[in-house]
Order: sequence, then C-alpha cells, then structure tokens
Amino acid sequence: MTGAPLPPEFALIARHFAPLAGAGTDSLTDDVALLTPPPGRELVLKADALVGGVHFLNDDPADLVARKLLRVNLSDLAGKGATPIGYLLTVSVPRGTPDAWFAAFAAGLARDQAEFGVSLLGGDTTSTPGPISLSLTIVGHTAPGITPRRGGARADDAILVTGTIGDGALGLAVALGKLTDSTGHLLDRYRLPRPRMGMPVGEFATASMDISDGLVQDLSHICRASGLGAVLEAALVPLSAPARSAGPAWMETILTGGDDYEVLMTVPTARVDACIAAAAERGISLTRIGRMATGPADVRVLDAAGAPMTFAATGWTHF
Amino acid sequence: MTGAPLPPEFALIARHFAPLAGAGTDSLTDDVALLTPPPGRELVLKADALVGGVHFLNDDPADLVARKLLRVNLSDLAGKGATPIGYLLTVSVPRGTPDAWFAAFAAGLARDQAEFGVSLLGGDTTSTPGPISLSLTIVGHTAPGITPRRGGARADDAILVTGTIGDGALGLAVALGKLTDSTGHLLDRYRLPRPRMGMPVGEFATASMDISDGLVQDLSHICRASGLGAVLEAALVPLSAPARSAGPAWMETILTGGDDYEVLMTVPTARVDACIAAAAERGISLTRIGRMATGPADVRVLDAAGAPMTFAATGWTHF
Repeated sequence: MTGAPLPPEFALIARHFAPLAGAGTDSLTDDVALLTPPPGRELVLKADALVGGVHFLNDDPADLVARKLLRVNLSDLAGKGATPIGYLLTVSVPRGTPDAWFAAFAAGLARDQAEFGVSLLGGDTTSTPGPISLSLTIVGHTAPGITPRRGGARADDAILVTGTIGDGALGLAVALGKLTDSTGHLLDRYRLPRPRMGMPVGEFATASMDISDGLVQDLSHICRASGLGAVLEAALVPLSAPARSAGPAWMETILTGGDDYEVLMTVPTARVDACIAAAAERGISLTRIGRMATGPADVRVLDAAGAPMTFAATGWTHF
Repeated sequence: MTGAPLPPEFALIARHFAPLAGAGTDSLTDDVALLTPPPGRELVLKADALVGGVHFLNDDPADLVARKLLRVNLSDLAGKGATPIGYLLTVSVPRGTPDAWFAAFAAGLARDQAEFGVSLLGGDTTSTPGPISLSLTIVGHTAPGITPRRGGARADDAILVTGTIGDGALGLAVALGKLTDSTGHLLDRYRLPRPRMGMPVGEFATASMDISDGLVQDLSHICRASGLGAVLEAALVPLSAPARSAGPAWMETILTGGDDYEVLMTVPTARVDACIAAAAERGISLTRIGRMATGPADVRVLDAAGAPMTFAATGWTHF
C-alpha cells in the first residue's frame, strides 16, 4: 500500500510546477519557501498581475503568457539594476482548463528560468469563474543603498533609454490588424518583452524605472516624484527599423503606447558617456533623448523643429 | 502650475493604498520595494490567491475579504512559527468598482496591519472582466535552520492542534443556511480566521503546517511527506461549544471541512508537555489528538469506541 492518492490540485502542482521549484521549497510540497538572503545585500520586491482579456488574450499561447508574466516583473528589477533570485506565482484558471495548458505554461516558465537564472519559490493554483488571472511576485537583490528611486532626478540631468521605444505598442497594432510589419519584429516584441537585466543603473542613475505604461507617462512619474519637468526630443528617441517604417502618423503610439520594457534613467551630464560605455559593455544600447528641467512637473515633447507636440492620451492605464 | 494630474489608477493607489505602505516602498510611488533582511535570519515566503465566487462571495464586506486574504497568508507563517514583516498585493476588480469598496478594503488591511505588525510592500491594481481576483505574497522571517517541514514526522510522535477544529467549516454551513448558531461564533470564525502567530513551532515540532484544507487532508500531507501513517482519535479533537452543539452528524464536516487556520504539529512524546506549556504561555491552547505510526501513508480516524470512521470527502480542494 502506498497511501492515499493525491487530490487533483496537488497532482497538478506535482506534475507541472514542482520541476520548476528552487532550493528552500521542498519541491513545493511544503506550505512556505525558505530563503537565505545573500549576505549584505538589500532585497528588491515587486508584484504584478496579468488578466486574460485585459493584458493578454485568453487564446494566446500559454508558454508566451507565462514568459510575459515573468518578464514584466523581471523588467521592474532591471529598471533598478537588481539581480533576480526567484518568484512566487498564483494561477487562477477556469475549471476544465486542459492539462496541456498547464504543460505549456510551465514549459514557458522553465525556458525563462534557465535564461534569467531564477526559480519558482511557491504559489497557489485555484479555479475561477472568470478569465485566467495570474499574479507574480519577484524577489531580487542589490547592493544596499544604491537603488535609484523615481524622485532623485536633478535639473539638467540627461534622460536616457535602453534599446528602442514603441516596438511593443506597434506590435499590439499589428496584432489588432491596424498595422502591417513583414519582418515580424514588432509582434515579437509585443508578445515577448526583453527585460534589460544587468543594466548598470545604481552606479549612474539619479532616478530610474522600467518603461511599461508608455515613455511619456513613465517619464512623468519621474517628473512628479522629482519635482521637475522633462524636455523630451522626439527626434532623438531610438526606433527600430520597422518602427521607423511605420511612419510619423505612429509617433504618438510610439511615445505613449506602453509595453516597451526598456530602462528609463536620468544621469548627470558628466556621467553620460561613462554610462553609455558601461551599458555597451553589457551589449545594451543606451540613447540620450532629453533632459530634466526646472518648471512644472510634466513632460514637454518637442518635434525635430523644436515645436511642442501634444497627444490625446499620455499613457496606458490598466484601470 | 503643479504639473500633469495623476491618472486614475495611480490616484486610486495614492488615496487608498499609500497610507498602508511600509518602509522601503517610497509610499508606493516607486516600482519596487527595498527590504533589508533582518541580519542572521532566514526569510519565509508564501503566496495565496482568493477569487470571488470561489473563496468568498462577491458581495461579502470588502474589509472582511481583505482581512481574510491577509490572515490566510499569515496563518501559513504561523504554521511554521515565523514572524511576519509585510506583504505584496495584487487586486483585480471589475471596472466601475466603487471607491467605497477600495476604502473598505484598505480599512480592513489597515486594521489587521496594526494587529499583526505588518505593512504593505507593493503590488498592482488592475481591472478584470471577471470576478474580484486577489493575490497576496507574505514575507516573514525566522531563525535559520529550525523551520519544520511536512516530512519530518517520526513514528510515535504526538499529533497536536491549536485552538478548536471545525468552526470555520460549520460557519460556512451557517452562511449557507444549513445550520443555525445563535452565538454567531461559527459564522465569525468562517469570516475571519485567527492565525496563531507566535506558536513556538520550531522549538518543538518535527513537522508542522497550518490547517486550511481540512484536518484530515492536511494531516495526510504530513503522512505522505513523512512516509508514515497517522491515527487520529475523533473524540480528542478540540471543539468549541457551538461546534459540539451541532451534534455528531456534523463530525465529518468538522474533521474534513477546512477553513480552520489552526496549527497542526507533530511533536516527540517526551516534548509534548513542554510544548503545551509553551503554547499556554502565549495564550494558545494546544491539544493532543493522535499519533504518527508506521504503515501506509494515510490518516486513520477512530471514533470514541476505537472503530474506524470513513468519510465521503477527505478535504477541500480549490480546484
């Protein structure tokens, strides 16, 4: 005799999630995870939720949904220059969700765990009468006392961004049939964020964050927290070739659309060249797009001729 | 000029959640929380989700829903003898959820933050086309190396439980109109768990956990993880006066129904008296209800005459 069989909930966890579990979790057979913090380091914590029909479509491939969930949280750590350790996950799905959905979801997590060096620390699986509802809490660490906040920018600091801006928002337009992109680049960037892990943020930035709700809106958070304005030069914003091909009619989408998952930093002008060089050493491009300025705490966007641009929407709100 | 107004999502967070925020969160105006781990301590982490229509009713008072969400997670820490620090929270609600709902939800959290000495470390608020969907990750700490797992029980260890068993499950029966209780005790225990913070678990237990899915099922997890059977004497299980009044027809509900949020421990027989005394010092009653035994890894429940009892269901599954 081997004892009582596992109830379905626990069998599901054992089959799909236990192989993802990290040290200190007893393969998810225990109630809690134990974590010995890296000595002398500060912990960095963040939680984000993704809901079917709001942040993804219910028939999106489960492996991509899982990877996006993990990556949007990793991107928050990247925005602060933190190193990820692991994550806790709650998954609420309709009754009758097929085992293949869980298998694909777990396969997506496994793939990104290997890529980003993180493991599953625990969580909860439950049913819901509504759409798939996911929540992930990421745990990382960093050197104590160096993490930039949103409120540390100073007048005349340069505004820098990693990578390219607008690909995710244009990718959504492609997904909705409003834009064509024969390269597939934009759709790919919408479906799968590329968090900029390893950016040397703490060493250079006076303020930093990742861009998830649109460049203009996220920069406005730094303005508000720092009590400063920002002057953003649209012509300096780095664009991918497919984004450039979309043409000027898409500029508002590019600057306000969200889903970038790049790092936004303010850096003292004397440190900009060293910061760009340090990013390049890690294979990350970094571009100066404007400067912080005294004045009202909002973002002025200037076109190539130096004239102010105005937008109907200033960013994506999930609410 | 004061700059751009806050988008509604951020205004909501500033109004209701920022007052709950702990140190290292910049009043939730930043992307991440920073946490300096208590020196020399091990961290204890757990995440649980509650979904409207599954774990609570959509018209349940928001303050009670908030407190239950926090308390079910606190109870997991209590089951391991850990001390809570704070929590991250994701809240997904239908569009148009009134501000009063958020005000009540935050008031419930504020009340329990004061009671349990925890603070909000971060989170995310989003809309959903489905029912209210909540997820909470709790962070606590404990002395390193002393946390009991489920798999550490040894043959002949005593099985102990805190408080009384079955009140939560009977309270659900009251809420559903299947049982009457003029005292209000059962309904209260269903609506508001009382996590047993401060139980001296690490010093005494070979295995421990909190009871959330029913005494018999949760004990079976300890059996399976420890490779042992358990003999549970139903007549020894501590009952509140209202639970006793419900009569023997409710014994299956009491033993298998869930929502107890008491601590279940296995303790070497030589240490039982000291453990009960240590719990009493903290105002927590602790009762011996059976023993671990060699044999198949499941739970044998005996009635007062020593005859085996069998149940249709062995525990609550959320799935």
